[in-house]
Amino acid sequence: MGPHPAVAAIRLAVRRVLHDVLHDALIERPEASRVTTPHRSSTLVADDRPLVLVACSGGADSMALASALAFEAPKLSVRAGAVTVDHGLQDGSDLRAAEVVARLGGMRLDPVESVAVTVGREGGPEAAARDARYAALDAAAERHGAAAVLLGHTRDDQAETVLLGLARGSGTRSLSGMAAVSGAAGRYRRPFLQVDRQTARKACLVQSIPVWDDPHNTDPAYTRSRLRHEGLPALEKALGKGVVEALARTARLSRDDADALDAWAADAERSVRDAAGLLECAKLYALPPAVRRRVLRTAVIGAGAPAGSLFARHIEEVDRLITGWRGQGAINLPGRVEARRQGGRLVIRQG
Amino acid sequence: MGPHPAVAAIRLAVRRVLHDVLHDALIERPEASRVTTPHRSSTLVADDRPLVLVACSGGADSMALASALAFEAPKLSVRAGAVTVDHGLQDGSDLRAAEVVARLGGMRLDPVESVAVTVGREGGPEAAARDARYAALDAAAERHGAAAVLLGHTRDDQAETVLLGLARGSGTRSLSGMAAVSGAAGRYRRPFLQVDRQTARKACLVQSIPVWDDPHNTDPAYTRSRLRHEGLPALEKALGKGVVEALARTARLSRDDADALDAWAADAERSVRDAAGLLECAKLYALPPAVRRRVLRTAVIGAGAPAGSLFARHIEEVDRLITGWRGQGAINLPGRVEARRQGGRLVIRQG
Repeated sequence: MGPHPAVAAIRLAVRRVLHDVLHDALIERPEASRVTTPHRSSTLVADDRPLVLVACSGGADSMALASALAFEAPKLSVRAGAVTVDHGLQDGSDLRAAEVVARLGGMRLDPVESVAVTVGREGGPEAAARDARYAALDAAAERHGAAAVLLGHTRDDQAETVLLGLARGSGTRSLSGMAAVSGAAGRYRRPFLQVDRQTARKACLVQSIPVWDDPHNTDPAYTRSRLRHEGLPALEKALGKGVVEALARTARLSRDDADALDAWAADAERSVRDAAGLLECAKLYALPPAVRRRVLRTAVIGAGAPAGSLFARHIEEVDRLITGWRGQGAINLPGRVEARRQGGRLVIRQG
Repeated sequence: MGPHPAVAAIRLAVRRVLHDVLHDALIERPEASRVTTPHRSSTLVADDRPLVLVACSGGADSMALASALAFEAPKLSVRAGAVTVDHGLQDGSDLRAAEVVARLGGMRLDPVESVAVTVGREGGPEAAARDARYAALDAAAERHGAAAVLLGHTRDDQAETVLLGLARGSGTRSLSGMAAVSGAAGRYRRPFLQVDRQTARKACLVQSIPVWDDPHNTDPAYTRSRLRHEGLPALEKALGKGVVEALARTARLSRDDADALDAWAADAERSVRDAAGLLECAKLYALPPAVRRRVLRTAVIGAGAPAGSLFARHIEEVDRLITGWRGQGAINLPGRVEARRQGGRLVIRQG
């Protein structure tokens, strides 16, 4: 008898990603292909095997991921380890981290470590915790020379991320959710982006893996938690059960669309500047609006506007210097950047 | 004292669209510019003025639109008329249509007519009613030689349309909602896409215009009604009050993105065919995924697959003949269309 379908599903998802990691490692570092040749001693082989870490909070998603990694890695001559981040935001978080480390060690993951971080305030509590977490994971990956760090985000997390992007209303890129591969040299991998949360939970249950439910996940003070427990269920009730899958597919399609349009804009950017490097309004006018707005956005950011403070309405206003020119004055943008039209050229600079 | 802000808002929205209609009419039919020259008799001037119709259900949105059109049209030498469509789906719908006609006549719109239609069943009740309605509006526009037909869709309708598209999960085009200008020669115009439903309702109230509330709009049997009364409010509760505006902006940005990518794909399509007109896999492979999938979709539809039955997953499967080639067989697609890879070419044809 094979494993429970939920366990089979999470293992398949991890196996696919491990294949990708090994494939990418061979391209990056061809000498790695020699690891399994019979001419080298087994001790050396063990040292040279690539290491894959799993980032584990102790919740169902990442514990399921850890269990699948522990099962699949040895079959592909990959070493599997784990890192849990103690955010220090709740009393006893250090004890819980120690408990997670013990459970991960019990899965024969090695190395397993807990890293304590200090969460700042910048960008709000969710963003600050995320920044601290990724800094810790980056450092752990560097320290251990890991080929990849697996993250347990599920299809449901992806759907929530798309809705959060939709609420920003800043277009295709903001709808593209989380990438399956991200970070420097593709360090972060998300094997579960097409696995639903229920499957991860079920896989823990049938494998008798104890999981920890983060109280933040049900705290209505957090936007994501409200979305998970109220927004998405109401949307499913109105639109049908396929909403989560549709949102996850929207993320994939939007990411590809945004990538293609960014590439087009980067290409167009070079053709719309005059000899002095200024943007020519007539040439900008001839571009499709979607491409022109991306060129303008890049130019405004290039002049010093912080990307996070730059909204669609700012770019629309700059765009009207091209498409609705009636002699209007300079446009003030975030980061003390100013855009004005002058002699058929667009002058964008920091004041 | 000027008009109430809600009335000012709907009039401004209509005035802008009337300017666009006049501008487009001049480009299309330059002789129209002679209409107001003093050399022609006033009788002829009256006959030559362009006619703009409003499609009016008797609900708050379209009654507000009719009132604004009746106010703004004479100032721009535009004739204003109205059409109400009697779908015959409810007892007494003919009497209600007659009442709407009387109210519109009272606004000095002329011509005003009621058109009875027979609603079929194709595509479900909402789609069938829509098809019958647009056929009747098209016929009325032709009969009266109207330059444009105004539709009362508001920003809230647009937000709902984006969410309905999101539920399909078929990408950027499906998120682009309703166009401000659509139909043959840009016949249909939607002046209220950036006006919210509450403003239209308020404008009726302060102008003492009686409105009719379609019971369909609150019937939970309809997806759109569930979305309006449950889905969107829950989403606003989770994400904040700006959701409707964000969704409407998403529609505009997505439409531009989809248009640009369609243009790119149309361009790329010509460069990826061999001398015999077959799609070359190597050239397709070199395209960005977003562009390649659009080329494939167009090719599959061109071979006879009905666009409405063709989903993202079908195109993904055809795409794997290019990006994940391992000798797989023919892919069966809707409309008995088959896609296979043969000698480095993609052969797509109806069986």
